Amino acid sequence: MVRSGEAHDAPGAAEADLSGPWRPSGILTWTTDFGLVDAYVGTMHGVVLGRLPEARLIDLTHGVPAQDVAAGALQLRHAWPYFPAGSVHVAVVDPGVGTERAVLVGWQDGHAFVAPDNGLLAGALDPARAVVHRVDPGLYGLDERSSTFHGRDVFAPLAAALAGGEDPRGLGSPQPGWDRGAPARRTSHEFDKGGATEARIVLIDRFGNAITDLEPGPLGPHLTDYSVQVMGRTIPVVDTYASVGPGAPLALVDSWGHLEIAIRDGSAAQSLGLAPGTTVTLRNPS
Amino acid sequence: MVRSGEAHDAPGAAEADLSGPWRPSGILTWTTDFGLVDAYVGTMHGVVLGRLPEARLIDLTHGVPAQDVAAGALQLRHAWPYFPAGSVHVAVVDPGVGTERAVLVGWQDGHAFVAPDNGLLAGALDPARAVVHRVDPGLYGLDERSSTFHGRDVFAPLAAALAGGEDPRGLGSPQPGWDRGAPARRTSHEFDKGGATEARIVLIDRFGNAITDLEPGPLGPHLTDYSVQVMGRTIPVVDTYASVGPGAPLALVDSWGHLEIAIRDGSAAQSLGLAPGTTVTLRNPS
Amino acid sequence: MVRSGEAHDAPGAAEADLSGPWRPSGILTWTTDFGLVDAYVGTMHGVVLGRLPEARLIDLTHGVPAQDVAAGALQLRHAWPYFPAGSVHVAVVDPGVGTERAVLVGWQDGHAFVAPDNGLLAGALDPARAVVHRVDPGLYGLDERSSTFHGRDVFAPLAAALAGGEDPRGLGSPQPGWDRGAPARRTSHEFDKGGATEARIVLIDRFGNAITDLEPGPLGPHLTDYSVQVMGRTIPVVDTYASVGPGAPLALVDSWGHLEIAIRDGSAAQSLGLAPGTTVTLRNPS
Repeated sequence: MVRSGEAHDAPGAAEADLSGPWRPSGILTWTTDFGLVDAYVGTMHGVVLGRLPEARLIDLTHGVPAQDVAAGALQLRHAWPYFPAGSVHVAVVDPGVGTERAVLVGWQDGHAFVAPDNGLLAGALDPARAVVHRVDPGLYGLDERSSTFHGRDVFAPLAAALAGGEDPRGLGSPQPGWDRGAPARRTSHEFDKGGATEARIVLIDRFGNAITDLEPGPLGPHLTDYSVQVMGRTIPVVDTYASVGPGAPLALVDSWGHLEIAIRDGSAAQSLGLAPGTTVTLRNPS
Repeated sequence: MVRSGEAHDAPGAAEADLSGPWRPSGILTWTTDFGLVDAYVGTMHGVVLGRLPEARLIDLTHGVPAQDVAAGALQLRHAWPYFPAGSVHVAVVDPGVGTERAVLVGWQDGHAFVAPDNGLLAGALDPARAVVHRVDPGLYGLDERSSTFHGRDVFAPLAAALAGGEDPRGLGSPQPGWDRGAPARRTSHEFDKGGATEARIVLIDRFGNAITDLEPGPLGPHLTDYSVQVMGRTIPVVDTYASVGPGAPLALVDSWGHLEIAIRDGSAAQSLGLAPGTTVTLRNPS
Repeated sequence: MVRSGEAHDAPGAAEADLSGPWRPSGILTWTTDFGLVDAYVGTMHGVVLGRLPEARLIDLTHGVPAQDVAAGALQLRHAWPYFPAGSVHVAVVDPGVGTERAVLVGWQDGHAFVAPDNGLLAGALDPARAVVHRVDPGLYGLDERSSTFHGRDVFAPLAAALAGGEDPRGLGSPQPGWDRGAPARRTSHEFDKGGATEARIVLIDRFGNAITDLEPGPLGPHLTDYSVQVMGRTIPVVDTYASVGPGAPLALVDSWGHLEIAIRDGSAAQSLGLAPGTTVTLRNPS
């Protein structure tokens, strides 16, 4: 998959580089653990529209498990590169709301980001290509801030300012260590060295597919003679869900480029008892 | 209810006919089984906005039960006619993703449709009024396609092209048999012939109302001396939920024009043990 | 928190008063108990777009518990003031659909409202500042109305008319008693009179936080030497979630200005067995 982070074909992305101008697209995306049962998300949207009436608001997901920063980062990481350059991506999974944790603005490949300093951007951006600054929580924020809803009082106003033209690279000052805990990106070299590679399930999706932290990269298309061991079972690596019979388990490189365990026409999480944290071993057959 | 499929009063619908020009409204609607827990839907929206920044994206539902093509078709069928002509309706419930199942574009009454060839359009369109073509999956799609997420890699780019001006009638070639398995539309004549008409529950909605496949059409307003038998109970057909006391069961012709079983201020599915597939009998009292 | 109801800083709010002109922003918000599993919400959006193609549709929440008018009113009340003046807020939690319950249009601080007459507006607006009229259900509505989906057939068309320029103050006639059952707004005086103030849990949010009906207002920042008794436990009132250790219970004045019971990094509803209706006592320590 060709994405912004590599060589995106979206309009405007080609000329985007760190020294180029910030040209907002008017699009803001939203990734939170707020759910959709309360009006919290709609309220943040209102704050933006009150400041930037022409803003265009796209929800990535509000279904991140409560306070699961790593899961939120992963969802954002695989979605933002499909948006046009100039978009502002707001991510609020914020167990530290009300503490002194910093407020971050980021920039990568012509996109802007707003998030608390807790690993969200570390997991969603490429530290080698991104610039991340710390800003004053009161910057553009509401005069009177609650101690419990900075999505509304801090992050939404800040995002509106960026989408309205404020250059993310011109705000605040560099925040060293913003990228601590960024997931290691494994390379195909690892697969060659031994007969087995360990991975860990990091997310169960809506279909019950179990997504691991293993990203085989260029080796992906060549894994179909490998197998996966998980929960005492051996499962073949195949090309697509329909490569096995209905109800049968399979592993494949999914649309995010991650190794994934699935059941055709079923839920792997339920049938195989998989959950975030479960260990998976990819085995080279030779 | 007056809808596009009949004689819609939406602006622009009146002049829409098969030989007329394709005039996109810039609106795209979305019907999937992707859920809202992951960023899959937001990612598709990003793909469209990357190609057509002025697109306007409206979610019909992403809560179709996983891989339930018939339920997805039903939701789409009763929603799209309320949109203005020129809208593009994207439907992705796609158990066959990664196989050779065809990619379809459709046209009916001035609206365009994009879906896999698996019955989604058969259930959502009127075969007598629609034109449906098969197109190359690579048409407008991303250069590098995953085998598991054609919503992002095939259907979203195709929909963006249609919303940007590409005439759905000018793409690909006619796909015979696209309408196989279209639900039979029963007529009021059936009700006159005998004392009983069988129906089947096809969908449980958010309120626990059980929607059947029986559409009484013009006979609808005249059913209030009929009764319904379901799970060993006899239930009166009435005009509205408030025609019975709180907690009492009832049947009525609902806002989709389908015979529906409900409980006033309660869940019929839960209280009466109803599920998709349950048989219902409509009885003429005389 | 500064909001429209008080002295909102959103563009255009400053000049809004009862005698001023109605200047629609083109934004419509939506608060219902329809859920997102069916295409009901998308269909209402289609009805509006068919009449006002440039409308901008923002969902507040569709996750109001089925037919829970008070919960819907509370969500709307704390969200609408963050939107720009000129917005139209549609609220449909409507157990009386199909009965003779009235259809209301409202106005407060430059915002317009559409809802059934069942307490939704009583809970969301300030009776001292709002004007509410009763209108003919057929006004702007679809010619043929279902008896079960007035969101689509009555409220959406009416909202589109308001967003298109129709002044809510010019439609229908005053509806006496629309504000019956409006929640009493307690003042800080109550806290001074005795050692204990009773409150009631009215909503459990997505995080399991239990929100009470007690709004301490200006006394809010001074409650941190008070304590709360609930379900036989005594819980400290603090400033923010992080004021206690992980897993510990706390009470605070939340982002809505309500007294709330929470567990740091956990669900108070689940851990303490709280639900709407549970009684809470705020105790003055002296």
